[in-house]
This record gives sequence, C-alpha cells and structure tokens, in this order.
Amino acid sequence: MRIAIVGLGLIGGSLALKLTEKGYPVWGIGRTSATCQQALERGAVQGCGTELAQLARFDPQVVLICTPLDQVLTTLAGLVPYLSAETVVSDVGSVKQPIVAPATELWPLFVGGHPMAGKTLQGIQAAEAGLFRGRPYVLTPIAKTQPQALAAMKELVAAVDAEAVCTDPARHDQAVAWISHLPVMVSAGLIAAVSQEADPAILHLARTLASSGFRDTSRVGGGIPQLGLEMARHNRQALLTTLRSYQAQLRQIERLIESERWDELLLVLQRTQQEWQQFPVNQPRRVPQDLGSDIHSR
Amino acid sequence: MRIAIVGLGLIGGSLALKLTEKGYPVWGIGRTSATCQQALERGAVQGCGTELAQLARFDPQVVLICTPLDQVLTTLAGLVPYLSAETVVSDVGSVKQPIVAPATELWPLFVGGHPMAGKTLQGIQAAEAGLFRGRPYVLTPIAKTQPQALAAMKELVAAVDAEAVCTDPARHDQAVAWISHLPVMVSAGLIAAVSQEADPAILHLARTLASSGFRDTSRVGGGIPQLGLEMARHNRQALLTTLRSYQAQLRQIERLIESERWDELLLVLQRTQQEWQQFPVNQPRRVPQDLGSDIHSR
Repeated sequence: MRIAIVGLGLIGGSLALKLTEKGYPVWGIGRTSATCQQALERGAVQGCGTELAQLARFDPQVVLICTPLDQVLTTLAGLVPYLSAETVVSDVGSVKQPIVAPATELWPLFVGGHPMAGKTLQGIQAAEAGLFRGRPYVLTPIAKTQPQALAAMKELVAAVDAEAVCTDPARHDQAVAWISHLPVMVSAGLIAAVSQEADPAILHLARTLASSGFRDTSRVGGGIPQLGLEMARHNRQALLTTLRSYQAQLRQIERLIESERWDELLLVLQRTQQEWQQFPVNQPRRVPQDLGSDIHSR
Repeated sequence: MRIAIVGLGLIGGSLALKLTEKGYPVWGIGRTSATCQQALERGAVQGCGTELAQLARFDPQVVLICTPLDQVLTTLAGLVPYLSAETVVSDVGSVKQPIVAPATELWPLFVGGHPMAGKTLQGIQAAEAGLFRGRPYVLTPIAKTQPQALAAMKELVAAVDAEAVCTDPARHDQAVAWISHLPVMVSAGLIAAVSQEADPAILHLARTLASSGFRDTSRVGGGIPQLGLEMARHNRQALLTTLRSYQAQLRQIERLIESERWDELLLVLQRTQQEWQQFPVNQPRRVPQDLGSDIHSR
C-alpha cells in the first residue's frame, strides 16, 4: 500500500514516521521545502515535494490529508486531478460534519478520520512514531462511503497501533464537543474570571497560591488560541449545545450553594466522583500511553 | 520548641514527620489509638494519645490543630484548660475567616495558618516529610494577633521548608476561592454536563475518546465529595462571588460563538493564554515539588 501524506506537521509527520517504520512506501507533501528537508532527514518519507502535482508519479493508493481543518476541502479539490480512480483519501480533522459529505461528493473513495492523539508541541520536529499507540482513531463512514475505502483505512489504523472507532460524523462532533472543545472554553473562562479580580493583592495572592488543582483545570484554556478558535468555528453548533447544558449545571450548583442545600450539593459531588471514574482515561491502572510510556497495549 | 499536633491525618502527620526530622520534640493527639500506633511506628511523634488532657504533661509551646475545618473551634475550646499561658496555637484549615476571629477570642496567642500542600491520598499512611517543601504556607494575622505568636509560626514554617505568605483572612479566603474552590465547581459542572448527554451512543463515545485534556479539566471535580462540600459551606460567600464572575465570563464566550465574532473570541483566547503564564505553577521551568521531585528549592 503506497501512502501519501499531505501536510507534515505533528500528526502528518507522526503518521509518516510510523508507516515508514512499518515498511509502507510513504511520500510527503510539505508546505515548505524546509519541512520536506526535515521529513527526509528524519526518515519519515522516501520522497517529498511542495506541489500536489508531484503525487501523480508516486501514484498513491491512500492519501492522508493532514492540513489544518479549513484547508481539507480545498486540498482535496486540488488533489483530484492527480489521483487514480482507486485511490482512497482520508483526513485527520478534529471536526467531521463540515468535511465528510462535501469531501465524499468530491471524491467517492473518501473516509473521514480523526486520530485522538496530540501533544503541546507542534510541527514535524515534535512528530513521533509512537504517537497513536493504543489511542482511539475515529473513522466516520456515511451511507455513500465505499466499503473498500473503509477497509483500507482500518488497515492503516491498525498499522499505526491505534484502535479504530467507527461512528457517524454528527455523533463524533457532539462527543468531541463534550470532551475536547467544551473543556477548552470551561478552562479559558476560569482563567478569564480569575484575571479580572479587581483587588491586586488578591490577584497576586491567587497566582502565588495556585497549585496543581488550578494548573490542571486551567491547562487547556491556556493553550494555543488558534486551535481553540478553530474548534469553535467548525464545531459551533455542537459546542453551543454543550456550553448551554454546562451553564445549566453550574447554575444549579450555584443555587444549591446560595440556598445552603448542602445534602443536595453532596449528592451532586458524589455523582460527579462516580461519573468521573466511568472515563477510561481517568482509571488509575490505565497504561499511560499519552504520557510517553513505552509499554505496548496490544 | 515543643510542638503538639492534634489530628494526625495527611497534613498533621506530614508536619509531625518533618518537625521530628528537624529535631523538635513532637507529641501527637490522634482520633483513634490505631492512628497513634501508626504515628509512633513511622517515627512521626515521640508520644501520642487520644485525649486532649494528655497534652498537659507534655506542656507544648506550639499546638497545631490539624483536624477537619468544622472541628477547629471545638478542638481549641477543649484544649484551653490544658495550655500554659505562653502556648501558641495555629490551625491548618483551608478557610480562615470563620476561624481566626473567634479562635483569637478563645486564645489570644492564636494565628491562622494554611499550608498549600496536599495530595489525593489521605491519612497518616500518605504522610511525607517533604510535603511542604517550597510550597506557600499562608499565615493570617489580624490586629489582635500577638507578635510572638506570629514569630513562632514563622519559625515553624521555615522548619518544614515552606515559604511563609502573610495576608488577612478575607483576602486569603477570596484567593483560595479563585484557585481552589471555584475550580472544583467548574470541573464538577463539566462532569455533570457530559454525564447527562441523552444519546447513549454519544455518551459512550465521549467516554471512549476522552484524553488528557478532559482528564485534567475534570480531575478536581471528580475528587472527594466531602472536601468539595466543606469548601462550599465554609467559604460560601467568596465562592459565590467567583461563581458569578465565572458565569459572566462564560456567557460572554458563548455570545461570541453564537454571533460568530471570531476575532473577539481569538482575543479572549490570546489573553487567557497570556494570563495562564502569569501563574508560577504553570511556568515550565518551575521545580516540580508537587510532582514528587527530590530537588531542593532552597
């Protein structure tokens, strides 16, 4: 299976490294020749260029579009003239509804994809072959998706040691709104609220006393602004749904405190403690793949 | 300086271990004889009992009340008959306004204290001598506080390798509402909101896909319910102030997303990224004391 990767950032670069390691012929298309140079030096790709037209002579069987979300459809449109009829195309965008239907119109062998992996550092320098190990890799087939396209992507997901999770684009977008996009806004709101404290002595004290609890709760709200903006723009409706539901929960907590209904507040906190444990990522004995462990999970 | 510690849980036990290590004579009062046994076995104390009256013959110069917050004043009242006139008394409660004025009425040599240290595990089993190393230890003198009482507590803070931070009870309570009590409610609200998702397929998917971002943002909301309740009960007014301010920030973020004012949302996220970096706990090169490092910070 010859694989082309368009966009050699953290995700594209890591996919290239892993697939090359597994013995697949991999070609890359980078935004700049400097990126291509680095991808070649790191042994991520066996060939690299900056023009989509260069893919024609490599004749890939699978193309992975690893550009930012708002460039996926234009990149696919630009690719179409250089693809042979059996080429499967996928993307790695974190929102699927705005992509999957129009991309499938442009190219019938398109399958939406979203590897649930990342790190704070960006770019090909931060890429690592083990980034996807044991992580969920969402695939979002729709009614028009061709079975052979889905099969090729499942092979690729297994090749990067990830776990394929199939769902429809709408459910994917709502689920990531809950666990990825809402937390960014919740956390950003926390930082914004503390920072507008009017008494400079209290603000200074708050900064001095902040410990691991504040650090963890505020971390994703202190992240890269453009990523938060991209989530909100492209998953606006699902995010608004979660924001409204979240605010209703918080108002309820506020009311319980206001009216000193302590037994009910205790019940809420007992339920959140139990619910928290329902998330595999929060279970104590989970293999810490995303902490850089070398333990294989499969 | 002879030191008595009443309440040998995580904080009391850790103070006892460190002060004994530094060569101070330390006596303990535990809730049960099993706790006393463990404190003696770990070498945290040189003597231990379960009755406050037993302190009379040890004649401590400093008594640290390390009970849960709602037992501090009754414990102090119970102690008074057994104290000599020069004994300094302090507590370790996480809220100071409801404690400091009435405690100073009961005992003029009282000083409010709050060591900013903790961990998920509770009890004397989890105690460690290095728990306070490099961490802030808040002291909250008021107008009536005796200078020799404050001086004794500053010596003790230095002895446990912590950094003394002096402020008044009201500012302390507002600052910890921002960085400790509000994050618990913000985080609990997040778990509560996700958990009431009506589509079981989306809820299952959300749990499956949740990664480090969700784990960190939800961690303190999944903590011990009684601790969250105690914070809300004893710091109710300061917490309500922060909850209202937080909700105003979140409504503003919601409005920007609703009305697609992306430039303004980007500005908000740029500011929160900058503000986040103003917190020493978030700075990358900080010595990670609270991650269990052995590096000395002073």
